[in-house]
Amino acid sequence: MTSAYKKLHDTFARLSRFGHLSAIAGWDAAAMMPPEGGQARSEALAELSVLTHQILTAKQVGEWLEQAGGEQLNDLEQANLREMRRHYQQAALLPESLVQAKSLAGARCEQAWRIQRKSNDWEGFSENLKEVVKLSRQEAQLRAEAAGISRYDALLDLYEPGMTSQKLDVLFGDLKTWLPDLLQTVVEKQKTETRIAPQGPFDIEKQRQLGLKVMGKLGFNFDAGRLDVSAHPFCGGVPQDVRITTRYNENEFLSAMMGVIHETGHARYEQNLPKEWLGQPVSNARSMGVHESQSLLFEMQLGCSEPFLKSVYPLVIEQFGHREGLDESNFMKLNQRVQPGFIRVDADELSYPAHVILRYEIEKALMEGEIEVDDIPALWNRKMKEYLGIDTVGNYRDGCMQDIHWTDGGFGYFPTYTLGAMYAAQLFRTANKAIPTLQDDIVRGDLTALFQWLQQNIWQHGSRFTTDQLMKNATGETLNPAFFRAHLEGRYL
Amino acid sequence: MTSAYKKLHDTFARLSRFGHLSAIAGWDAAAMMPPEGGQARSEALAELSVLTHQILTAKQVGEWLEQAGGEQLNDLEQANLREMRRHYQQAALLPESLVQAKSLAGARCEQAWRIQRKSNDWEGFSENLKEVVKLSRQEAQLRAEAAGISRYDALLDLYEPGMTSQKLDVLFGDLKTWLPDLLQTVVEKQKTETRIAPQGPFDIEKQRQLGLKVMGKLGFNFDAGRLDVSAHPFCGGVPQDVRITTRYNENEFLSAMMGVIHETGHARYEQNLPKEWLGQPVSNARSMGVHESQSLLFEMQLGCSEPFLKSVYPLVIEQFGHREGLDESNFMKLNQRVQPGFIRVDADELSYPAHVILRYEIEKALMEGEIEVDDIPALWNRKMKEYLGIDTVGNYRDGCMQDIHWTDGGFGYFPTYTLGAMYAAQLFRTANKAIPTLQDDIVRGDLTALFQWLQQNIWQHGSRFTTDQLMKNATGETLNPAFFRAHLEGRYL
Ligand SMILES: [Zn+2]
Ligand SMILES: [Zn+2]
Repeated sequence: MTSAYKKLHDTFARLSRFGHLSAIAGWDAAAMMPPEGGQARSEALAELSVLTHQILTAKQVGEWLEQAGGEQLNDLEQANLREMRRHYQQAALLPESLVQAKSLAGARCEQAWRIQRKSNDWEGFSENLKEVVKLSRQEAQLRAEAAGISRYDALLDLYEPGMTSQKLDVLFGDLKTWLPDLLQTVVEKQKTETRIAPQGPFDIEKQRQLGLKVMGKLGFNFDAGRLDVSAHPFCGGVPQDVRITTRYNENEFLSAMMGVIHETGHARYEQNLPKEWLGQPVSNARSMGVHESQSLLFEMQLGCSEPFLKSVYPLVIEQFGHREGLDESNFMKLNQRVQPGFIRVDADELSYPAHVILRYEIEKALMEGEIEVDDIPALWNRKMKEYLGIDTVGNYRDGCMQDIHWTDGGFGYFPTYTLGAMYAAQLFRTANKAIPTLQDDIVRGDLTALFQWLQQNIWQHGSRFTTDQLMKNATGETLNPAFFRAHLEGRYL
Repeated sequence: MTSAYKKLHDTFARLSRFGHLSAIAGWDAAAMMPPEGGQARSEALAELSVLTHQILTAKQVGEWLEQAGGEQLNDLEQANLREMRRHYQQAALLPESLVQAKSLAGARCEQAWRIQRKSNDWEGFSENLKEVVKLSRQEAQLRAEAAGISRYDALLDLYEPGMTSQKLDVLFGDLKTWLPDLLQTVVEKQKTETRIAPQGPFDIEKQRQLGLKVMGKLGFNFDAGRLDVSAHPFCGGVPQDVRITTRYNENEFLSAMMGVIHETGHARYEQNLPKEWLGQPVSNARSMGVHESQSLLFEMQLGCSEPFLKSVYPLVIEQFGHREGLDESNFMKLNQRVQPGFIRVDADELSYPAHVILRYEIEKALMEGEIEVDDIPALWNRKMKEYLGIDTVGNYRDGCMQDIHWTDGGFGYFPTYTLGAMYAAQLFRTANKAIPTLQDDIVRGDLTALFQWLQQNIWQHGSRFTTDQLMKNATGETLNPAFFRAHLEGRYL
C-alpha cells in the first residue's frame, strides 16, 4: 500500500510542476509580455492559482497529513512533512473565490501600475489598490482568526515563518535609536570628501556585458538561468532555470550593476537548493528574509566592500574605458556613498532600513484597519521627511508608487529586506572568521571558499531547518542585530 | 438552469487559459530557456497536458455535448459546438498514459535534437525518435480504429480536417507530373542570368531592425506580439500575444527577412481571429493548411513579388547601405531565385513541394508500418536525389534531422505546407480580381485593401466554416490546384 507520505510527495511534486509554469509565465509577464497580452495572462494565471489551490486543499491532503504523522520518516522527510503541513494550513484557510479574486485584482493593479507609475497617476492607481487592500484584509482576517494572532502577523508569517510584529517592533525600535544619528554623521563626514559622478552615456549593451561578466565572477550558472530587463528588478523562474532581471539607465551604470549583483545572490541560493529534493517543499528557500540575506550578502557585504570592488574594477574599465569619475579610488567611494534618496531599491545600506520601516509601519496600519488607502500619501510624505529628510509631496511616482509589492497584495513582505540585511551581516562576519584568508581571496577574485561556506551553511539546506536553527547552526546564535550595527559603523565611520 | 452549451463554453474557456500557459511556456522553451531548464519544463508541460486531457475528456463533457445538440443555438454557437465535439472526440480516444508518455518522449527528443543536430548525431537522435514513432503509431492506431480510416489519415485529420491521403495522392500525383520539368526548365533559364550574392557581413542587430520594420509594414501589432530568435522559426503564443521567431546568419540576410515575412502572415491571422470569441474553439484558426496559406500569401505571393520587393528595397538599403549585390534589379532576382537545396524552410516555391512530398511519403509509410526509423536516411537520400537531384548521404543535419516536426510526433503535418501554398495562390488571385488597384497599391506600400480582404474573407471567420466552405465563400470554389500552377508558371517562365 502506498504510504500517505508518498501520496503527499506526489501531490507536492505535481504542484511544483504547475508552480513552474506559473513562475515562467510570471517572469514573462514582467520581462517579455507586450501590453495587450496582460488581460489573458492574468486570467490564465488566476485559473492556475485556483487549480493549485484546489489540489493543495483537497480533503484527502488533510487526511494524508494526519496519517503521515504516524508513519516512519527520516529527518528530511519529517522536515518535508512539516513544510507540507505549513503550506496546506496556509492555503486551506482561504476560500477559492478569494484566491481567484485576489489573483485577478493583483494582476490588474500591477499591469496598470506599469503605465500609471510613469504618468504619476495616483488617482488611477489607488482605485485598483483599494480592491487589492480590501481582499488582502479579508485574507489577513481569515488567517488571523485561525492562528489567534493579529492580521498583520498572520501575513508576515507567510514570508518569514516565526517572525512577529512584536519582535519587529523591538528590532526596528532599536534601529530607530541609533540609525538616524549614524546616518546624519556619515552624511556630514562624506560632505568633506570629493566624489565625482562618472561621465555617461554608458551604452546599455556594454552595461549588460558588464553585468554578465560580474554574474560569471559570482558563479551564476548560465546553463540554468538568464539575465533580462524588467521595470522592477527581481529573481524569478525555477531552481533549474533562474531568471534574474535588472533595469538600465544610460546616464549611470552602478545601479544596474549592483542590481545584478543583488539578484545574483538570490539566484545562487536558488541554483544551489538541494537538487535531490527539488519539487518538494523542503527544497524551497527557507524564508524571504534568508533569501534576502543572500542577495544582500552579495550586494552589500561583499559587493560594496573594497576588496571586491578592486577585483571588479578592471571589468568596469574594460567596458567603459578610463574616463572622468572612473579612477579606482573614486569608484570605491561611489559604491559606499551614503545619500538618502527617493528610491528604496537604489538606497544605500544606511538609508535602506528607513525605507523599510516606513513601509512596515504603513502596511501594518493598513492591514490592521487603522488607516485607508487614501491616507497613504500624506503618511508617506510625513515619514519620508522624518526618517530621511526627503520631500515627496505630489511625487507619487518616486513615492508610494515606486514599488511593485503592494500592487499584488504582498503585504508583510517589506520587513524581510531589513531582516535580510541583519542576517547577511551576521553570516558574512562568521564566514570571515571561518575563512581567515577571505579578504585576500576576494581581492584576487577567488570566491570559492566563500561559496563553499554558503553552500555548506545555507544553500544546501533549503527549508530543512527553521530560520532560528539555520542561523544557530551557521553562526552559533540566532538573529543578533549587533552584527549589522557593527558592520555599518565599521564601514562608514 | 445553466444550459449544457454554457457549461461547455465555460469548460473550453478554462481549457484555453491552460492552453495560454502551455503556449507561452512552449515558446519560452524554444526561444529563451537555458539547457538545464529542459527536464523540469518537459515535466511541467506534460503535467499540464495530462490535466487538460482530463478536463476535455471528462464524462460530463460527453454528456453536455449530447444535450447541447438539442438546445437552441445560433449559427456561431452551432459552429462552436461542432468544433468542441471535434476536440472532444479527438482527445477522448487517447488514454491519459499515452498522452503523458507522448508529451514526455516528444519533449525529450526535441530537447536533445537541438544539440544532436549540431553534431550530426543521427545515432543518438534515432534512439529518441523510435520512442516517438512507437507512441505516435499507437495514437494513430486508436484514431484509425475509431474513425474507420487509415492510420495516417487519422493523423492528417488533426491538422487538416477533411483532408485524406487519397485526395493528397491526387494533388501530389498531379504536381509530380509537371513540377520536376518546370523546375528543370526554370533552373536552366536562370543559369543564363547574372545574380550576385550580396556581400556580408550583415550585422544581426540591423537584420533584426529590418525585420521589425517589415513587420510594421505588414501590419503586425507590436502591442500584441514580439519577434525573437529560435533554432527553427515559428509562430507561437496566443492571439492576444503572438510570438514569432526567426534565425539570423551574418553572411546572408534574405533568409531571416523572408522568415519574418512568413511568420508575420501567421501572426496577422492569429492577431485578427474573432476577438469576441477568443477562448472558444470556433475562434481558432481553421486548419494548419489555411494557416500556412496566410504565411505563404505573405511570403511567396506578396513577399517575393516585384511590387512588394520594390517597396521593401529602400528599407534594406537603409539598414545595409548600397553594396555589391544590393542594386534593385539584383535584389529582385535574388528573391526569385530557383535553386534546389537541402533545407526546406529556405527552399524556393518551386522546390518546396518536392521537400513536402518527400516527407509525406516517408511519414505515411512510417505511420502505416511499412518502414522503420532506421530506414529513413536511405529513403531520404534516394528521394532527395530523385526529386531535387541533391546528395544528402551522411549529412543528417541538413537531411532528415533538419526539421523539428517529427521530434515531438507531428506526423501528418507536412502536407499542410503545400496545401497552404495552393490555397495561397487561389486566395491571392481572387484578391487581385477583387482589388483592381492592388499591384499599384503594393508598390506604393499601401496594403490596406489586401488586409481588409483577408480580414473579411479569412481572418475574422476563425473555425466557423469548414475549409471547403471557407474557400468557396472567399474564391467561389473549393481548392483548385490550377491557381498554384498558373502562379508558378507566370512568375518563373
Ligand atoms: Zn532582493
Ligand atoms: Zn508557416
